[in-house]
Amino acid sequence: MNMPRSASGQGAVVLLSGGLDSATTLAIARAEGFACYCLSIDYGQRHRAELSAATAVAEALGASGHRCLRLSLDDLGGSALTDASIAVPVAGVAPGIPVTYVPARNTIMLSLALAWAEVLGSSDIFVGVNAVDYSGYPDCRPEYVEAFESLANLATKAAVEGARLRLHAPLIHLGKAQIIQRGVELGVDFGLTVSCYQADEHGHACGSCDSCRLRRAGFVAAGVADPTRYRV
Amino acid sequence: MNMPRSASGQGAVVLLSGGLDSATTLAIARAEGFACYCLSIDYGQRHRAELSAATAVAEALGASGHRCLRLSLDDLGGSALTDASIAVPVAGVAPGIPVTYVPARNTIMLSLALAWAEVLGSSDIFVGVNAVDYSGYPDCRPEYVEAFESLANLATKAAVEGARLRLHAPLIHLGKAQIIQRGVELGVDFGLTVSCYQADEHGHACGSCDSCRLRRAGFVAAGVADPTRYRV
Repeated sequence: MNMPRSASGQGAVVLLSGGLDSATTLAIARAEGFACYCLSIDYGQRHRAELSAATAVAEALGASGHRCLRLSLDDLGGSALTDASIAVPVAGVAPGIPVTYVPARNTIMLSLALAWAEVLGSSDIFVGVNAVDYSGYPDCRPEYVEAFESLANLATKAAVEGARLRLHAPLIHLGKAQIIQRGVELGVDFGLTVSCYQADEHGHACGSCDSCRLRRAGFVAAGVADPTRYRV
Repeated sequence: MNMPRSASGQGAVVLLSGGLDSATTLAIARAEGFACYCLSIDYGQRHRAELSAATAVAEALGASGHRCLRLSLDDLGGSALTDASIAVPVAGVAPGIPVTYVPARNTIMLSLALAWAEVLGSSDIFVGVNAVDYSGYPDCRPEYVEAFESLANLATKAAVEGARLRLHAPLIHLGKAQIIQRGVELGVDFGLTVSCYQADEHGHACGSCDSCRLRRAGFVAAGVADPTRYRV
């Protein structure tokens, strides 16, 4: 296993949605030796089942802490994930940025991770953005990740005092199948994760939204049995 | 009055805390012709009275809309403003970054403003950061404001589709007295605003925290009668 940097128990904040990508990201951060403080955001998303999944994933992968902040993004709407009047597309992945895009979501989540990192005295943040999302969501692109890291290094008291924040996006160049393979290598139980945009309260997936389609295709391409619990 | 750009009713998001600076910023945005959508954040701050002040200020200055999002930053703590166990300093403004610094606060608030701007289809965000805060808070510096604008122009669907977000910080080079003079010229009723870090539920100020001291000195230097309601 390739370990770019051993951190010997140093603390890192890991954004953990409860989905497949962030679970693998947490496993990577753990494998690199970080003590992981997982942050989830209850932002009024329709797939709140992912938050219970995040709790299970954090525990299974030995997180040192897990917080879930409440943020009423549903008061702003503008996305199929935060506005009940906008339907989640189920006809297949289409070109362009889908209506499930949540305005500025990664900027918001990274800013909250930055806040917690500063409170904890941590200089490392992990986020599970990746190349598959890249084609659709602007805030998953490598140049976006670099820009956020630059901003973070101007934004905080810690930065003024000389700390250098590192934003780790270990999945950025991986496709879904590679992410799954990496997760399997690291012992991630993907059966605990929820990716579906409209999972029911038990975490059962619809099987037809973009997120379900990308996930299912990823398991097929990786040659890994799909542990997703689908609704029937 | 200097009007850098007439916007003829174009929509802008204005971060409105309920304090003196953001009220003046709103007045400037209105004077420039923007239809203003004010955003306040209930982040667990001890001076929640500023949120009622924000509502009054938004109405008095003819905002087109006002939203208050709830964000449980008090779950993270790390600041005298969000953690009841850390006292607000009252002995006078000291050198360095004070304990009232809220980790990553402006990054968080700007990211939420960015989200709402995208939902509204607006390309303009106004924030009341200024040169007086500059000495203390890292996320009030001009280079920080520029970095956030750059990030915003990578972060959103709107940016990918060609929109260019402008982050306006019209107070950035002004001292407190100049801000007050500008506000008076534009008809801001500073009696509606609350700056105190530990204002009581009626908005009455303590008179001794850093924010009260800077505000009081600003009114004196501006030669403007101080309308602040102090506790006795």
